[in-house]
Amino acid sequence: MARARQAGSGNAGPAEALRRLDATAAQARAQGADLLLCPEMGLTGYAIGAERVASLAEPHDGPWAQAVAAIAQRHGVAIVYGYPERNPAGKPFNATQAIGPDGVPIGHYRKTHLYGDLDRAQFSAGESASQVFTWRGWRLGLLICYDVEFPEAVRGLALQGADAVLVPTANMTGFDEVQHILVPARALENRLHVAYANACGSEGDTTYGGLSTVACARGTVLARAGRGPGLLAATLERGALQAARQHAYLNDRRADLYGPLAG
Amino acid sequence: MARARQAGSGNAGPAEALRRLDATAAQARAQGADLLLCPEMGLTGYAIGAERVASLAEPHDGPWAQAVAAIAQRHGVAIVYGYPERNPAGKPFNATQAIGPDGVPIGHYRKTHLYGDLDRAQFSAGESASQVFTWRGWRLGLLICYDVEFPEAVRGLALQGADAVLVPTANMTGFDEVQHILVPARALENRLHVAYANACGSEGDTTYGGLSTVACARGTVLARAGRGPGLLAATLERGALQAARQHAYLNDRRADLYGPLAG
Repeated sequence: MARARQAGSGNAGPAEALRRLDATAAQARAQGADLLLCPEMGLTGYAIGAERVASLAEPHDGPWAQAVAAIAQRHGVAIVYGYPERNPAGKPFNATQAIGPDGVPIGHYRKTHLYGDLDRAQFSAGESASQVFTWRGWRLGLLICYDVEFPEAVRGLALQGADAVLVPTANMTGFDEVQHILVPARALENRLHVAYANACGSEGDTTYGGLSTVACARGTVLARAGRGPGLLAATLERGALQAARQHAYLNDRRADLYGPLAG
Repeated sequence: MARARQAGSGNAGPAEALRRLDATAAQARAQGADLLLCPEMGLTGYAIGAERVASLAEPHDGPWAQAVAAIAQRHGVAIVYGYPERNPAGKPFNATQAIGPDGVPIGHYRKTHLYGDLDRAQFSAGESASQVFTWRGWRLGLLICYDVEFPEAVRGLALQGADAVLVPTANMTGFDEVQHILVPARALENRLHVAYANACGSEGDTTYGGLSTVACARGTVLARAGRGPGLLAATLERGALQAARQHAYLNDRRADLYGPLAG
């Protein structure tokens, strides 16, 4: 069902990023993918500085959305991409949008868990929890990078009935435990699929760790990329969801005892 | 700081279990342990049927508590043990208690997340979330088996400042992903140590998976047992907690968005 693109975040800028996206979408579709998941801030690069983020930011329905929609339509593949979203009230949001193969936006999310000084210097935090959307019968949720390290963020989507959580990310080297431990844990503990598409290569002093990972609802890693650029393929199965859900974590929760988590 | 005992749950009964506990406490202390963590329902066995659970259950300060206190005092080691706790209102609780080397109880907890028909046939669910207690400057929390598979349960202890979570368990074969994925994830995502002491061997049709695991606050597995009986040693370091907490998940949570988790 999905392809995750692991790519250098591309200081080359949005025009070059869109050319690469077009080529990658063609490649993904040729391999039979229905959906292409790209890294966090993939259209602009992530660690590019507050000034450049602010100067590049666009509305969710701006020229990039139109360009990505055209690419999605041209190749008949849904695309989840990351970009800085203009915010009239302050610093841009670190955002992601899903656009269907008919060019129509189907999901949108602004990163709510900002990571360290780098995120805080460049972005405003999103003010709403991620909302599940339905596409081709799949219940999908979007998170961005650091969000997925918080069990609460994925649980919130699971409680909305998510079948799969799609995570554009730009996780640096030295934090491989996210791909190795936390992504499989989120899949397992919520009985849903998680696809985590990381950046690779360097931007200034920042080096991304690659190892994009797709984990299935049993916690098994279905596919994992290496450190360099590439297109990672995985097939998300409905049958695996049904089988995994026979062990029903969501039914056995004790929400009556979880008040302090939201306090 | 700790030793985890992996043992057959002991259909032999409480008297034999107490004799084994005495020998194990001596062995643990000889190895320099301060605390000995034993499996879920270790004094009676776990899958022993509702009738036997009910006939064996004792109050938290009953004869077993006194016997374990005597063992703890004799060897100068704290002991965390599991037992069925008498419940005047219904089926017993699946309980655990920590007793200090001076013989004084220091922590107590009743399993809140019951697992499947087996737990529900034998036990009433605990009605209170686990509460952190302090011992020798450590903030400790208790959970039992299936509880730790719920991120909310461990997060609740982390929000109370837990340094380590001690988990008596009787996890069956076929569910090794708990030891391999979820226990390290709980440690990592909360920046605390987790010790998970499993049963091994069989009780009737039920076979326990061993692989008792101690994971440190960076998600690294410090020690893991095999499938058979044994005494697993691990040293929990304060320095590791401080280093791991420089990356402060608890500070970056968005509790304002987590309302649905407690709904």
